[in-house]
Amino acid sequence: MRQEVGQLEVATRGRGLIEITNEVARWIAGTGIQTGLVTLLCRHTSASLLINENAAPAVQRDMLRWLEQVAPEGPHYEHDDEGPDDMPAHLKSALTGVNLSIPVSDGRMLLGTWQGIYLAEHRTSPHQRRVVLHVMGE
Amino acid sequence: MRQEVGQLEVATRGRGLIEITNEVARWIAGTGIQTGLVTLLCRHTSASLLINENAAPAVQRDMLRWLEQVAPEGPHYEHDDEGPDDMPAHLKSALTGVNLSIPVSDGRMLLGTWQGIYLAEHRTSPHQRRVVLHVMGE
Amino acid sequence: MRQEVGQLEVATRGRGLIEITNEVARWIAGTGIQTGLVTLLCRHTSASLLINENAAPAVQRDMLRWLEQVAPEGPHYEHDDEGPDDMPAHLKSALTGVNLSIPVSDGRMLLGTWQGIYLAEHRTSPHQRRVVLHVMGE
Repeated sequence: MRQEVGQLEVATRGRGLIEITNEVARWIAGTGIQTGLVTLLCRHTSASLLINENAAPAVQRDMLRWLEQVAPEGPHYEHDDEGPDDMPAHLKSALTGVNLSIPVSDGRMLLGTWQGIYLAEHRTSPHQRRVVLHVMGE
Repeated sequence: MRQEVGQLEVATRGRGLIEITNEVARWIAGTGIQTGLVTLLCRHTSASLLINENAAPAVQRDMLRWLEQVAPEGPHYEHDDEGPDDMPAHLKSALTGVNLSIPVSDGRMLLGTWQGIYLAEHRTSPHQRRVVLHVMGE
Repeated sequence: MRQEVGQLEVATRGRGLIEITNEVARWIAGTGIQTGLVTLLCRHTSASLLINENAAPAVQRDMLRWLEQVAPEGPHYEHDDEGPDDMPAHLKSALTGVNLSIPVSDGRMLLGTWQGIYLAEHRTSPHQRRVVLHVMGE
């Protein structure tokens, strides 16, 4: 049993969902681990990780609109030093979470057919985001 | 230190919460692992996993009604190819999450007294759902 | 590769967020594990775990107010045996989650600069809360 730690750098273009399934899969393949557990941690509080349907692009657009409705911008936040999109970004990050663990078998993540891993950027402007990767297995 | 991978099949009856705590516990017992970490992954984007109160059935009914309110059906979704309950199901799945990791000691999950593990079916019609199980330990 | 299991006791003062990052870090340091994966499980269904911004206290206050809005108290819950704050507490717990896994390197959690780990107490009155800790690594 052994483990490896790595990091993905993701350049976002502002608010949106970016699929990172292939990048994570390639990193796991590079470790040579066949059976194990991979864990992802998004190292930010205004971006998050999400497993979502990866077939229809409309799903991602509806998801973003829904997040806007659940955690809208507005004058009612006490914390607004970094702009009106900052506090809603923290709320969306808490709602969707920054952490995923996925079992690996035959060197591949055991995701369902329609599941993709997404980095969700909740700020309006582009950011450089970092996702820590950890895999343990053999 | 060793690991095992398995899968639970859960037949749902449409929208609802199905407790799977006992099924997961039995699977762990079958592996013989006494101390470790068990990880569950629901392989769908319109069903999810939830740790919830397992004593009062009314809690589950209130939970379902609340999810309806937070992610209601309606004509405002762009993605509706699979019916009006499809996009709300993706939203509820993102909100509650598809992934859980639970420490194991003395061969048992270290859940609290009132905690049960639930598969949440968010589609209106019955589905066959798969939950991947992974345990690592000794 | 080895593992350790522990538990944090957190005394809450009623509804609020309590940062536990330092307590978790100290526990990991005590295990001597340098590289690995730490998993936290909050053993309750009316409290939860959250990774949130740890710099501005206003973020925590906005987070609490938002949770009140998303899962408000009211007469519309079927489950109210334990008081009007009980069912909203279960909903907030489901929304934010009770489970976190964080990679460890050089004996430290690989959290981002602004990320803190919080126990969220969702009940109005003070409670004694337990968080299970599990670390696996070497």
